[in-house]
Amino acid sequence: MPETLDAIFRPQTIAVIGASKKPETLGYKVFHNLASFGFEGAIYPVNPKAEFILGHRCYHSVLDIPGPVDQAIIIVAKEWVAEVIDQCGRKGVKGVIVISAGFREIGGEGVRREEELLAKVREYGMRMVGPNCMGVFNTDPDVRMEGTFAPTQPHPGNIGFISQSGALGAVVLELANHLKLGLSLFTSMGNKADISGNDLLEYYQRDPNTDVILMYLESLGNPRRFLNIARKVTRDKPIIVVKAGKTTAGALAATSHTGAMADLDVAIDAMFHQCGVIRVSTIEEMFTLAMAFANQPLPSGRRVAVLSNAGGPGILATDALISHTLELAEFAPETTEKLRKMLPEEASVRNPVDMISTADEEDYQAALEILLADEHVDAVLVIFVTPILVKSFDVANKLAQVIHEHPHKTVVTCLMGHEGILSGVEELEKHKIPVYRFPESAVQALAAMRRYQDVRQRDYGKIRTFPVDKPAVREIIERARSEQRTLLYDDEVRRILISYGFPLAQARAVKTVDEAVEVAREIDGPVVVKLLSKTITHKSDVGGVQVDLRSEAEVRSAVSTIIYNVQKRFPGEKIEGFLVQEMVKGGKETVLGMNQDPKSGPVLMFGLGGIYVEVLRDVSFRIAPLTDHDAREMIESLKSFPLLQGVRGEAPADIEFIIENLQRLSQLAIDFDEIGEMDINPFIVGARREDCKIVDARMVIRDS
Amino acid sequence: MPETLDAIFRPQTIAVIGASKKPETLGYKVFHNLASFGFEGAIYPVNPKAEFILGHRCYHSVLDIPGPVDQAIIIVAKEWVAEVIDQCGRKGVKGVIVISAGFREIGGEGVRREEELLAKVREYGMRMVGPNCMGVFNTDPDVRMEGTFAPTQPHPGNIGFISQSGALGAVVLELANHLKLGLSLFTSMGNKADISGNDLLEYYQRDPNTDVILMYLESLGNPRRFLNIARKVTRDKPIIVVKAGKTTAGALAATSHTGAMADLDVAIDAMFHQCGVIRVSTIEEMFTLAMAFANQPLPSGRRVAVLSNAGGPGILATDALISHTLELAEFAPETTEKLRKMLPEEASVRNPVDMISTADEEDYQAALEILLADEHVDAVLVIFVTPILVKSFDVANKLAQVIHEHPHKTVVTCLMGHEGILSGVEELEKHKIPVYRFPESAVQALAAMRRYQDVRQRDYGKIRTFPVDKPAVREIIERARSEQRTLLYDDEVRRILISYGFPLAQARAVKTVDEAVEVAREIDGPVVVKLLSKTITHKSDVGGVQVDLRSEAEVRSAVSTIIYNVQKRFPGEKIEGFLVQEMVKGGKETVLGMNQDPKSGPVLMFGLGGIYVEVLRDVSFRIAPLTDHDAREMIESLKSFPLLQGVRGEAPADIEFIIENLQRLSQLAIDFDEIGEMDINPFIVGARREDCKIVDARMVIRDS
Repeated sequence: MPETLDAIFRPQTIAVIGASKKPETLGYKVFHNLASFGFEGAIYPVNPKAEFILGHRCYHSVLDIPGPVDQAIIIVAKEWVAEVIDQCGRKGVKGVIVISAGFREIGGEGVRREEELLAKVREYGMRMVGPNCMGVFNTDPDVRMEGTFAPTQPHPGNIGFISQSGALGAVVLELANHLKLGLSLFTSMGNKADISGNDLLEYYQRDPNTDVILMYLESLGNPRRFLNIARKVTRDKPIIVVKAGKTTAGALAATSHTGAMADLDVAIDAMFHQCGVIRVSTIEEMFTLAMAFANQPLPSGRRVAVLSNAGGPGILATDALISHTLELAEFAPETTEKLRKMLPEEASVRNPVDMISTADEEDYQAALEILLADEHVDAVLVIFVTPILVKSFDVANKLAQVIHEHPHKTVVTCLMGHEGILSGVEELEKHKIPVYRFPESAVQALAAMRRYQDVRQRDYGKIRTFPVDKPAVREIIERARSEQRTLLYDDEVRRILISYGFPLAQARAVKTVDEAVEVAREIDGPVVVKLLSKTITHKSDVGGVQVDLRSEAEVRSAVSTIIYNVQKRFPGEKIEGFLVQEMVKGGKETVLGMNQDPKSGPVLMFGLGGIYVEVLRDVSFRIAPLTDHDAREMIESLKSFPLLQGVRGEAPADIEFIIENLQRLSQLAIDFDEIGEMDINPFIVGARREDCKIVDARMVIRDS
Repeated sequence: MPETLDAIFRPQTIAVIGASKKPETLGYKVFHNLASFGFEGAIYPVNPKAEFILGHRCYHSVLDIPGPVDQAIIIVAKEWVAEVIDQCGRKGVKGVIVISAGFREIGGEGVRREEELLAKVREYGMRMVGPNCMGVFNTDPDVRMEGTFAPTQPHPGNIGFISQSGALGAVVLELANHLKLGLSLFTSMGNKADISGNDLLEYYQRDPNTDVILMYLESLGNPRRFLNIARKVTRDKPIIVVKAGKTTAGALAATSHTGAMADLDVAIDAMFHQCGVIRVSTIEEMFTLAMAFANQPLPSGRRVAVLSNAGGPGILATDALISHTLELAEFAPETTEKLRKMLPEEASVRNPVDMISTADEEDYQAALEILLADEHVDAVLVIFVTPILVKSFDVANKLAQVIHEHPHKTVVTCLMGHEGILSGVEELEKHKIPVYRFPESAVQALAAMRRYQDVRQRDYGKIRTFPVDKPAVREIIERARSEQRTLLYDDEVRRILISYGFPLAQARAVKTVDEAVEVAREIDGPVVVKLLSKTITHKSDVGGVQVDLRSEAEVRSAVSTIIYNVQKRFPGEKIEGFLVQEMVKGGKETVLGMNQDPKSGPVLMFGLGGIYVEVLRDVSFRIAPLTDHDAREMIESLKSFPLLQGVRGEAPADIEFIIENLQRLSQLAIDFDEIGEMDINPFIVGARREDCKIVDARMVIRDS
């Protein structure tokens, strides 16, 4: 029900509970911002101790306000918030913004207080931002609500911002103003007790004034919902995220390959990738990108023209382009000719174009026109280095004209220096042309726009649902839990995998050597005999696995060897039996893994087996549920992928079948979040699907 | 003879030839800068058309100046430069700075003009900066020479700058001023006809005012000399380089593994690493680092305390610290106690310390004192986010006091926001405290300082020189050249390797099958028989290699098979004979390679053989000559290095012997730059040096 967020972002009447006359209080600042930004509806200060605040009649309680109240902004001592919420509920308030702090963030008593608050909010059917936040604004000319205590007044614009940190929210507002970047919506989420980042994303997507969404996040409440929502939003509007806390979250408990390698940040990176969210490392980079996304069309390709008045910056720009996998455009012959005609002999008319330091505003205008007319150019980066005789203002002014006349091609600019270019920077900012101080930032922005263009067009693929036997798996898990076991037995793991349609190497458990011989006879080709034990987990380490057995004699001898090995190492150990398994030969060893991350849900892993996983750490991760596209990317993004394609004349492995099995694993992980870890290792993959077999697997059940 | 550069940087008298009265000319700007910066010696304008310039008597020619002239700055039309240099030579001028353009950079006639210039400079024993440069300055109070046409007047300081681009030089000067970073020496190198970056590095090292050296480079003239000089300089002073043109230089011609993988930039990265130069990607990053290096001591360890007045920035700083392999300091118990006592309950006294937004200048002072006193803290990052009630100026002022009282511990600061922090930033800049706008930049600087601390202390290792047979190699190369061959024959390659003491698998060339059988008998164990051919290079592809031959019959059959295979594919091909080689078993396949890069000299490569090189591209590069330390790093930096150490109980490979062979290869490459490429593949490496054998190798001679 995100439409109810209108009570947060588009209220008609607002009560500021805890408004104050004292300029150094938050209660004053919020009320002052609201009043001075020109809110289009009615605002009511509520404070039992004041009669008027900034000329507005003050009310003793929200209940005393005549007529309906849509929204309340609450800035009272933490102990009073619950009661105030009660009053709001009785008054029929639909949305509350709780700025007061002293809740979950201080732990203990605060957690209880926050739960009480949330219960009341739910009881009255209200929606709440906060507590412990710095407020919300909406610069829509029909609304003009500035309900924060930020010291800076926002410029209206097309960028929506969502912040999980109040302090960084304030920093972002200051910086946006400084860069003349206009904002549409701003939300400081605080403790996210009710309204989450996901709710806000959905609302921002529908907001007609918002073209670009920026987020500062420290945690993700519901990653799977985020994945779903963000996939839809990024089709429409770019989401640029700074996700902090990469390293503090710490590694997960690790009892398997997957667990050991999937730290939280890898999972989050995978998730952002899967839903087309642009992750940046710093607030600075967020602004670098936002400036271009907010004001320029997306480039239709990767061919960039660089236009400069000096050589060095052109080279730096070229380096940056290539390292971001953009390309230097190859100009049409007429482009080169036209440039040659207009520029002095010393100029370089090849890309990067160096007009040399004599280039003035007319040259910039003419050259930019020429480049924009070239069909081989998808975007232009214009660089200007203060020369001695040309004014940056004049150049900026002409550039702005040309750029506005060509609204369909991407242009970004870079003015280098300081004193000499300030007026030019200002002029470009005034005309909403992206202007950077270093060519690398401009290129970073172009590269992100280009990637986002791909995101908009990309096929996310399909989540397949296979017919499976869920009850069988349910039963196994419940039995293990009832026996307080976390590690499943081999045969349980096998039954689970079979229930989900995985291809297992042919095998049967036996009790005696004679049975083993009989089973070996049934299996076509050489066999492996493995110890079955409920207590010994690493069977090959104790000599409990014998391979490539080709005759009755070899099978008999193998069984004796296993018994001998086990009794030598674990005297008195009861041997429960043996697994006789077909020996899978040829093909490539792969590893499929899964780790239930408490924050991100199931993280799936894929890699080639043996040293590729263990030594080279060449593995890929994605969050479940996995589309076929996700699964294919997991496989193709490996450095060792060429080995699956086949080197030196080998047949390629059946990639489609690996995709299918990754999707089966995804389905199993989603269906049973009781399974904490799975390691399918090795899954031997051959050229045809019938050559692909799982040889071994482990599963761990989470503590319930 | 770098001391002669005193004529460039510490002249007593300067003639400005081409000085002008017209303010928009370079001749005016240079003379005006020189006059107004307060040069401590005498300056003479030279211009036949003027009588006085800025109150100085003007001379018709440099020859007319009374008394000696040390230095001439030349800004005359390109056609006149040579004649002017002549006059300077006759006058006894020791150093010239040629600002005039129109030389090598325009090609053709310009190249010839530059050669003429250089010849004259050499003839008179002068030293020259340029041509095509923007000049030189030295802010030493005893000199005060500002001989550039830059529009900004420099602040004196301890940073020396060397620029290969005039335009970027000017940008750097503007930015340095804006950031209040003081400069000692500045050189715009122009075309580097005489004085090179290497000469300047040596001079800057000895300059007592210079503590930090910054370079903007587009090319390296003499990389081996750079390597030697920079190794010495970086012991003493940090060198921070932006090397542009990473990608434009293009890949080298590639006929071998080494060639295919060693592009120029990889070689340059390797070289910078080998000599301790700090390479940064952008001018912005160069300033980020310079600000800290110029004004703070190097941290003695990697333990960083973060002190902030908000949570979010502390988390961002922590992320950045960890990703730069720095550590969050673990405080001593008394530190935590003291912080607890002074800070409000809501504050977090663990690292990162969050004093919350109420923290004022007194809190910052007290907390910083506490952190600096903790022996577990090597460096402090202080973050300040504009809160509502605290003035950034006051905080900055207190911080500056504390930091100056603790000159031995590293402190950097970060003020976030805009309006609210400008006065604080200014105050910190005034006191020469590194101040950043984002925590990531501050961390980047700390990390670079920490790495440089290691560079200063590091052992570069030793270059070993082995007794070798150079004449034998010389003869082989000369014969190949006389026969106009670039590819050496197998036996030539073998002889070269033996001459340089490499361990070759036992082998002998034979003509007939009977000889082959005889040789096979002499070799202990199984053998390999290979086709010998001067025209067929990829012998195994044509069935020209037969392995693991264990009997006379097998050897005979192998020879027949090779003859059959070759004649089937190349009917009429003359078979010159066969190589019978011991079959080397066990051990790991490695590849040693060398590529003579026209710009960097010999680039050496090391990797594990087969897919590790071909598919995973897991290889390392260094520039020759190789110290043992360099060679060890080449080996240990591989992702697949654990395979050499031995996994799953295998014995480790003889790493010391690989090092020795890499050093032999280095020696060979240095001794014979006629060898364009070498590929030793495979070099099979076992646990003991006697198990290590080269099985195959290729060498290509460069066109002479």
